[in-house]
Amino acid sequence: MRKQLHVISDGKLSLEAFAEIAGELEPFTDRFHLREKHRTSRELYTGVKMLLKKGIPTHKIVINDRVDVAWAFKTGVHLAFHSLPIHIVKMHFPDIRIGCSVHSLEAAEEATKQGADYILFGHIFETDSKKGVPPRGIGALEALKKRNDIPVLAIGGIKPENVPEVLGAGADGIAVMSGILQAKDPIETAKLFLKKLNEEGQ
Amino acid sequence: MRKQLHVISDGKLSLEAFAEIAGELEPFTDRFHLREKHRTSRELYTGVKMLLKKGIPTHKIVINDRVDVAWAFKTGVHLAFHSLPIHIVKMHFPDIRIGCSVHSLEAAEEATKQGADYILFGHIFETDSKKGVPPRGIGALEALKKRNDIPVLAIGGIKPENVPEVLGAGADGIAVMSGILQAKDPIETAKLFLKKLNEEGQ
Repeated sequence: MRKQLHVISDGKLSLEAFAEIAGELEPFTDRFHLREKHRTSRELYTGVKMLLKKGIPTHKIVINDRVDVAWAFKTGVHLAFHSLPIHIVKMHFPDIRIGCSVHSLEAAEEATKQGADYILFGHIFETDSKKGVPPRGIGALEALKKRNDIPVLAIGGIKPENVPEVLGAGADGIAVMSGILQAKDPIETAKLFLKKLNEEGQ
Repeated sequence: MRKQLHVISDGKLSLEAFAEIAGELEPFTDRFHLREKHRTSRELYTGVKMLLKKGIPTHKIVINDRVDVAWAFKTGVHLAFHSLPIHIVKMHFPDIRIGCSVHSLEAAEEATKQGADYILFGHIFETDSKKGVPPRGIGALEALKKRNDIPVLAIGGIKPENVPEVLGAGADGIAVMSGILQAKDPIETAKLFLKKLNEEGQ
């Protein structure tokens, strides 16, 4: 399977600015996550409409935590430990695509058992957004992939130059926030990530 | 129709403490709103389970803003201006009971048009939770009821002694937060409200 590139909003851009960049990134990106914890559901609703207007197809949009907003548009949803439990979402919002953030092997197994479609695992490397929290490292990613069949996207401090190492550990793709959104040239950076993700011999 | 009493959580009590009081208030209360803006959906999910365990029937539970949590239990939902639009909730979450907070005649008409089942209008009197914001007053409530067919619950600074005035203006019931939850004796206070709401000659 082609390795995936997810771009996650970092909460620093306005929704307009994120939608603008997303429109340009669309050909090189598999999923756009609206992860805007400080925003109301009305703002997220407006944000999804902006993404759609910029030509992002519904199946490429993922809403963090707010299952109601996701359900209104039939986008994907991304859950964390503070979200509704996966099995409850599966029961009451059938056919919605569910991703889940996990930070341990145990949580990954639980998410798999409950029926998550994929997991985000991290942070893999040191990153400014998780200052002072030691990274999980490549070894943990490798162990997780050995014990679980579920697609795993690596997140946290991933740069184009360490993509081969991440894929070598078994990742099915990567998720990037500021690495793309705060890059000098987000489009060129996304292209570079995509190239690294799908180079021959991975 | 019997005049309704809604009790709204004030965000000051723990979910356990609110569920405990709700269990005792249940015979005297028509609806319990979980209005806990600072809490995660996982916490609200746990909160609803606590209310159910205390014997509150599902149809008496109302979740503020989080349509996803409401939908998981098929409770009612209460929307504000920062929530998903009413018509979107009606379209994607059919048969869920929708209340809506409004602060003007125009907003009341819009909510009615979009299909809200009832509205909360206020604040009617001065209240500590809206310090410095002038109350809408009894006159606005009366005007709203004259122009709209929708059930209207009055909220804000309502005490047992001003219930007759509120009902005189046409209210179909009242919603109370700290007036009951922070009362010396919440149960006796709720009973007194209920008596005032349903006295002969209203």
